[in-house]
Amino acid sequence: MKNYTKFEKEEGARIELHDKLGLTGAEISINSLPADANVPFIHAHKENEEIYYILSGNGKFVIDGEEVSLKSGDSIKVAPQGKRQIFAGEEGISYLCIQVKVDSLDQYTATDAIIC
Amino acid sequence: MKNYTKFEKEEGARIELHDKLGLTGAEISINSLPADANVPFIHAHKENEEIYYILSGNGKFVIDGEEVSLKSGDSIKVAPQGKRQIFAGEEGISYLCIQVKVDSLDQYTATDAIIC
Repeated sequence: MKNYTKFEKEEGARIELHDKLGLTGAEISINSLPADANVPFIHAHKENEEIYYILSGNGKFVIDGEEVSLKSGDSIKVAPQGKRQIFAGEEGISYLCIQVKVDSLDQYTATDAIIC
Repeated sequence: MKNYTKFEKEEGARIELHDKLGLTGAEISINSLPADANVPFIHAHKENEEIYYILSGNGKFVIDGEEVSLKSGDSIKVAPQGKRQIFAGEEGISYLCIQVKVDSLDQYTATDAIIC
């Protein structure tokens, strides 16, 4: 069995990679909102933190009632209990949403890598 | 204390977000290689899987000796034991590398979200 899986991006408002790539430590979605649209609900999480990476466009988050501006290249972590809602700006917005379990990472990079 | 942290992208060949965002479930790095450059070593991992998301440009992975082409929008998961090395193509390549512990995700999206 190969040690990798690959997925080539398709068109779609939301593409979820967990099943497409066989992920076991994260769910990652690729999301797009057209100009001035928004996710139509506020949400929080039980045990997962989320990291958003803005791929293109602009917009804002509202987190616990506070506005946070978003532009291409920004990254933002939201703790599970943060009540969040994302809004596209006049350019629309595309972003990755990475969901991982809080405190699940034991070691990384220098302590986890093996140079072959 | 706020339930979020934000980082605005800076210039750099490799930007590591773990400490900048206070991540607890992943390390995420933003990486750029100029045209025809490559990471100068082959590596594997002890317990983390990696997910690469290609932000722009082109290139290839060599994983366990097999070539896998890369272009903007591709995503690829590599299991811990996969021996990997990334090479930029003639456009250079920029990518996110997301490191998470294998089997650390218990639930996600519908089972982990709370609609407020």
